Amino acid sequence: MINAVGRDIPDYLLKDGREVYQGKNYRDGQYFKKDSPRVKKHEKPEGSKLCSTIREACEKCGAHDGMTFSFHTEFRDGDYVAAMVCKVLVEEMGLKDLHVAATSLGSAQNIFADYIEEGIIVEAQSSGVRGRIGEAISTGKLREPAIIRSHGGRPRAVEAGEVHIDIAFLAASSSDCCGNAKGQGGKNNCGSMGFAMHDARYADHTVIITDALADFPNIPCSISCIDVDAVCVVDQIGDTSKIATKEARMTENPRELMMAKNVADVIAATPYFKDGFSFQTGVGGPSLAANRFLEEHMRERNIKMGFALGGISGAVCDLMDKGLVERILDTQDFDQKAAAHLFSNPKHIEIDLSQYANPSNKGAYVNNLDFVVLSALEIDTKFNVNVITGSDGILRGAPGGHPDTAAGSKCCIIVTPLTRGRMATVCKDVVTVTTPGDCVDVLVTDYGIAVNPLRQDLIACLDDAGIKHVTIESLQEKAYSLVGEPDPLEFEDQVVAIVEARDGTILDVVRKIKPYSFD
Amino acid sequence: MINAVGRDIPDYLLKDGREVYQGKNYRDGQYFKKDSPRVKKHEKPEGSKLCSTIREACEKCGAHDGMTFSFHTEFRDGDYVAAMVCKVLVEEMGLKDLHVAATSLGSAQNIFADYIEEGIIVEAQSSGVRGRIGEAISTGKLREPAIIRSHGGRPRAVEAGEVHIDIAFLAASSSDCCGNAKGQGGKNNCGSMGFAMHDARYADHTVIITDALADFPNIPCSISCIDVDAVCVVDQIGDTSKIATKEARMTENPRELMMAKNVADVIAATPYFKDGFSFQTGVGGPSLAANRFLEEHMRERNIKMGFALGGISGAVCDLMDKGLVERILDTQDFDQKAAAHLFSNPKHIEIDLSQYANPSNKGAYVNNLDFVVLSALEIDTKFNVNVITGSDGILRGAPGGHPDTAAGSKCCIIVTPLTRGRMATVCKDVVTVTTPGDCVDVLVTDYGIAVNPLRQDLIACLDDAGIKHVTIESLQEKAYSLVGEPDPLEFEDQVVAIVEARDGTILDVVRKIKPYSFD
Repeated sequence: MINAVGRDIPDYLLKDGREVYQGKNYRDGQYFKKDSPRVKKHEKPEGSKLCSTIREACEKCGAHDGMTFSFHTEFRDGDYVAAMVCKVLVEEMGLKDLHVAATSLGSAQNIFADYIEEGIIVEAQSSGVRGRIGEAISTGKLREPAIIRSHGGRPRAVEAGEVHIDIAFLAASSSDCCGNAKGQGGKNNCGSMGFAMHDARYADHTVIITDALADFPNIPCSISCIDVDAVCVVDQIGDTSKIATKEARMTENPRELMMAKNVADVIAATPYFKDGFSFQTGVGGPSLAANRFLEEHMRERNIKMGFALGGISGAVCDLMDKGLVERILDTQDFDQKAAAHLFSNPKHIEIDLSQYANPSNKGAYVNNLDFVVLSALEIDTKFNVNVITGSDGILRGAPGGHPDTAAGSKCCIIVTPLTRGRMATVCKDVVTVTTPGDCVDVLVTDYGIAVNPLRQDLIACLDDAGIKHVTIESLQEKAYSLVGEPDPLEFEDQVVAIVEARDGTILDVVRKIKPYSFD
Repeated sequence: MINAVGRDIPDYLLKDGREVYQGKNYRDGQYFKKDSPRVKKHEKPEGSKLCSTIREACEKCGAHDGMTFSFHTEFRDGDYVAAMVCKVLVEEMGLKDLHVAATSLGSAQNIFADYIEEGIIVEAQSSGVRGRIGEAISTGKLREPAIIRSHGGRPRAVEAGEVHIDIAFLAASSSDCCGNAKGQGGKNNCGSMGFAMHDARYADHTVIITDALADFPNIPCSISCIDVDAVCVVDQIGDTSKIATKEARMTENPRELMMAKNVADVIAATPYFKDGFSFQTGVGGPSLAANRFLEEHMRERNIKMGFALGGISGAVCDLMDKGLVERILDTQDFDQKAAAHLFSNPKHIEIDLSQYANPSNKGAYVNNLDFVVLSALEIDTKFNVNVITGSDGILRGAPGGHPDTAAGSKCCIIVTPLTRGRMATVCKDVVTVTTPGDCVDVLVTDYGIAVNPLRQDLIACLDDAGIKHVTIESLQEKAYSLVGEPDPLEFEDQVVAIVEARDGTILDVVRKIKPYSFD
């Protein structure tokens, strides 16, 4: 069945109430009964929940074949815990038919790729899929198609009962013996635990893995002892130096700085740029640099940001320290500066993924967002964005909060160079739709700016401000003239991943890539 | 059927899985699937949830006959909101068959007594029942027996699905237009909203009633906008001067001070009195005064309290300010000093009723409590305590956290004068059992101290410390010798209230009081 972004979704996937994407806000106003965990009553006072090994904690929680295990990846590429736990489940306990529900999957979980190849991990649900796991999934090694969800789609799916977590294994920078846990107070502080908090409340069992045992009660905390079954102390939960990827550093590239300046100019030209406005940037070079140029406009107009939302970098913290940001609502920290800032500034506040972006709660923060600045692997002339598959059709990206903030915000700006290497970023049709075009308002490239024709109001604003803009088709043509039109990728029929829209409908599918042939 | 505290529970009440009380920790280790709310998805960005009247908020949430409405009573005798809302439901909207689930019911909700008499409110679930509501229930005016639950029993029952809240009407000292609400930042600050927080997450609909509209986002907050359907601004949500009842003031009565000193001496004689110990007091005169005497022992031993738990008074805040208390875990504030202290001290932390005392979560704070000092209306020679029915058999009390802390703590001390007016406090059989005797360890009266024979270890401690103690029977005999043995109360068969143990079993029932006859 063809969905609202023109993608052909195989009918056999449309079971158990699953529908194809129908457009923005399709399920608004619907009622549903939330799912809930099946938990063990701890009436009897118990001095401690400490387990001496991960295996002991797994056994305490009744780990067995076929279960769904969740992990959070607030440590990003520096996470040790997911791999450590999975190794125990597979190699020490000999479990099989594992279902993995992670907030992201990347190089830190490369061992998962082996278990996928071996048929031990049979299902994976995640936002990001990168590294060897992406290749294993793209070549069709999972029994079931992977499910790619946005950060808001994940708590939605959990609350809808579409993914039911049997055991959540949650890395925490410190915890007491009863499981009061947080991203601070240890030797490896990740800052916000926004990715883990919701899991702890919805998993049947929750195990805290920490490398810093704190005195009871370790509060205030992100995860409460009332949701924790077991606590396990290990040597190292992660390497915080790997939290900040190179993308999270401030760019000095003049082309990226120019795009960042244009983004800030577009923002300043809209009516939403007024005292108390709200703002989110992604972690890419020009997105991050937009903070710098925004500062100039804020000072010029003598206005402050009401709140900054989402994944937080030191750049936003700097703006707060300069008195230009009233509040920071933080789901994850992109660097150690932001992680430390969270605990030293009372107006820098941790929020969980449901508060951030869940489209089926009673109003997530993305719904109050004025501006979001996001990057793209590809964007097509319908303004559809792809942030999950590379130009080779392999899974190597992450929707994260992209679809959620695009849908919720009043003005969604995509910033990307027109081409990357030999590839056109602005194209006729993205390989995979991860954010629907009707949620995207403005495109800023190094070759010009385009506004979605759905937003005639914004076109008028840019015209009033004297900001030049062109059609997205002209940008796509320019891209093709520079690097040529890409050859269509060749896929087999097998669906290897389902890209869910934030509301749970199917936005797109990723098919198995055809093995490269040299004839 | 006779239960484990010797009470005869009518068989007809034992339906829908309900059992009689079987003793402490009977349900420990059992698994259950939590209940959950049926909620409306707010996908579409919505600027504000403000309703101009309570009626509009009620209609937005689909209020209709037969629904269960919840209220919290953090404003105690100064609460305006429960009465205000109920008046709208009944008098403006003409609703009937109302079910009320409140954290407490007292004089501030006297209008409920009228609606009970008129048959409009047909069911009531509460911890406290006082004032005219107590009389209306005791004289059999409800269609169903009232259910009296402890503070821990309430979230347990909500999570078990035994009470499902259709609409929670929650008074908040400040809220933004999206429902981020807290007990601070307004003109009537109640401090902790520990009684309201759990309701907001489990109610199908949540309405915030405030008299101070704050800028968005009003965070950090106690109740998150993701759980709120409507916000309503009224003139006054309550009178904070009525939060502190006369019981919450520090006593100068020498008899009470003597008892308080004895309580502190007993505490200091146990092995639990060491650095980092945890402690809770009730709000009664001698309980509260125990803080003062405990200070002397702490200074003498050079130890600090690890955490103080529960309802918090200025006396405990003073101890923290003097450096003697590491953390305060706060479910409600008994006075304005404590309410202000919560927001100015990062180690004074708000917790909800589930974290505090729910026996069916994964370990509530009461389970980590060393000492609790509680009062009693009556205590019998089996150490069973009554805090709900007066000497006339009428409902006029509140179990609150009494049964929860008694069960969870290592040492539960009841402090009470031997007689009150013409009534023996220490008696052969309490009118109603609200806390089972096997959870009570020590009784301190103005005529001597008794230790539960189940606690031979504590008896040895007191002997070692040279603290005199007697049998509870001798105290009861002394009481009867002073004021005489009470005539048995005369009840009819009709059960007007069920007293639930914290685990949901039936601990006792309250029957309809026989009308007083003058022949």
